Amino acid sequence: MNRPNTVQWQTAEGIVYLKPDDALDSSAPGFLDIIDQTLLPGRLERLKLSDPEEIFHAIKTLAVRGAPAIGCAAALGLAACAQRFHAATRSEFLSRLSGTAEYLESSRPTAVNLAWALNRCCTAVRRSEETDPAILLRRLLNEALEILAEDIDMCSAIGRNGLSLIRNGMGILTHCNAGALATGGCGTALAPIYAAKEAGLNIRVYSDETRPLLQGARLTAWELSYNGIDVTTICDSMAAQVMREGKVDLVIVGADRVAANGDAANKIGTYQLAITAKYHQIPFYVAIPYSTIDRSIPDGSHIPIEQRHESEITTFNGKRISPETIKVYNPAFDVTPAKLITGYITEKGVVSAI
Amino acid sequence: MNRPNTVQWQTAEGIVYLKPDDALDSSAPGFLDIIDQTLLPGRLERLKLSDPEEIFHAIKTLAVRGAPAIGCAAALGLAACAQRFHAATRSEFLSRLSGTAEYLESSRPTAVNLAWALNRCCTAVRRSEETDPAILLRRLLNEALEILAEDIDMCSAIGRNGLSLIRNGMGILTHCNAGALATGGCGTALAPIYAAKEAGLNIRVYSDETRPLLQGARLTAWELSYNGIDVTTICDSMAAQVMREGKVDLVIVGADRVAANGDAANKIGTYQLAITAKYHQIPFYVAIPYSTIDRSIPDGSHIPIEQRHESEITTFNGKRISPETIKVYNPAFDVTPAKLITGYITEKGVVSAI
Repeated sequence: MNRPNTVQWQTAEGIVYLKPDDALDSSAPGFLDIIDQTLLPGRLERLKLSDPEEIFHAIKTLAVRGAPAIGCAAALGLAACAQRFHAATRSEFLSRLSGTAEYLESSRPTAVNLAWALNRCCTAVRRSEETDPAILLRRLLNEALEILAEDIDMCSAIGRNGLSLIRNGMGILTHCNAGALATGGCGTALAPIYAAKEAGLNIRVYSDETRPLLQGARLTAWELSYNGIDVTTICDSMAAQVMREGKVDLVIVGADRVAANGDAANKIGTYQLAITAKYHQIPFYVAIPYSTIDRSIPDGSHIPIEQRHESEITTFNGKRISPETIKVYNPAFDVTPAKLITGYITEKGVVSAI
Repeated sequence: MNRPNTVQWQTAEGIVYLKPDDALDSSAPGFLDIIDQTLLPGRLERLKLSDPEEIFHAIKTLAVRGAPAIGCAAALGLAACAQRFHAATRSEFLSRLSGTAEYLESSRPTAVNLAWALNRCCTAVRRSEETDPAILLRRLLNEALEILAEDIDMCSAIGRNGLSLIRNGMGILTHCNAGALATGGCGTALAPIYAAKEAGLNIRVYSDETRPLLQGARLTAWELSYNGIDVTTICDSMAAQVMREGKVDLVIVGADRVAANGDAANKIGTYQLAITAKYHQIPFYVAIPYSTIDRSIPDGSHIPIEQRHESEITTFNGKRISPETIKVYNPAFDVTPAKLITGYITEKGVVSAI
């Protein structure tokens, strides 16, 4: 495992936890250092966070978003907070740790990775027999760094495996943002693209703007461009036209949850894109870590579709674009049936079924 | 033919030409009275126009848009201008008429209906043998009203014919705006919807927001809602999900140009919508007057696709939503192949091929 010391995102600068080796030096504690994604693409500014309220706020307001990235940020953020506990005893340390973790977890209650990462950190500390708070702090920091390292490795492996699908000169279309900004590493759907770039392949990427929240236009276009990759933004409704013109050889998207039969829930618009790819006989791949597969769900019909607030569609930068009285339907996700999915790019390899 | 005197749009208030019967009364000349569509849906305000510069500006800035509506507005606007010529002789009247028509035509050089309507008005006046400018003015006004009346009748006939496809309780999806705001009457794609409403049928309409310029969210949602029709705005990428949920029984769109084989050019996103409808086995109809069919074009591959400025995608209300350096692809139209089109709703009837 590629264990980071001073953590750097491999592709875009993302989460950086400063001075992990100084964890025991309470006179110079570390920070959670993240890009403020709410300011992208207009400004690239970083947030250096160390108290629970700041970290809570950053997660809640989507300064950091994307399930794996949220998990990493929460774990590293918890460690940054714990460096400031100055606890005298094990029980004081554990008590403050639980309180802080519980508080951070409430920032986005439905984010599975958030709860998972915080629980994993707390459990690791609690399982330790140590009584010295400084050593418990070291245990905590190690676990947080482990979570990040695993995420980085997972992304790299997905990139390596997905690279086998990419040839020189290809056009690749993606939807939403499943990249470095959404993970601790180089992303899931974008990982093979970064791998192709690293391998010296000449590729063109088309990024769906991804209404309503425009993660494609704002984030994917930004991070690919920032990393020197040829990227073109299109409106979601243009994918068919771009495919028809022969510009797309491969579609790669991420997924939030995959059912046991391979049906994949992802950002709204993914299903329509899969239908469009099928019509043009263009391979459609879903890039996911195995942890995204939920074997308890037999098929996509059991995945609930979150409805989000109408203001995401009716307003833009605070200005209304639809009539006041209008009804809006705003499902955040859709489910792409397995039959429309050519294969899955995972950390274990590319598979046609899961 | 339903010849309007005081012209009213049948469904939404749209182009109203005030006091046509006062055409000979130069002490109380008429105006071109249109909705300022640039302010929709935020504000419903009307423009009362009577000089060439104002009318030129209204057409150029899309205060009135949609090919048939532009034609009607130009013809009626020309008549409003001519009421203020105070010409002493036939030759003076004709000379000012030509100059004004030429000037108005230059407001949107590529709009076929604009040139067509202005030419038709000028030709009608020139063919008249009359020498009295007041009678030439009446001839002009009659021709302009005739153009509007024909447009209204065409829309009504499309509505009547399309009504045969609609059953009580149906969900109908449309894209962009091919409604009352785009024509002199009740629209093309929206005409059957208005006809269904008038027939007392209970229907639900889904309106694609239609990126990048959001004509669906801004205009279609507004005019349907204004006329008491149950309308829900969705992002373009949500159509597949809405279809999958069984909410859509019928898709009706307009078209800018239809080739001899039935391939239809329409607002970008129409092609993707047609693919999506086909996948869900939902009937997909194109509503058009026969004048939209260009028999000189054998198939859709000969229809040029206009590329529009990247700022339509990269900015919103003047604020950038994509990185400064990003490339953008912005085709304004796409071509839906005839094989994806269930049929055509025309003023002569519903046909499966044209």
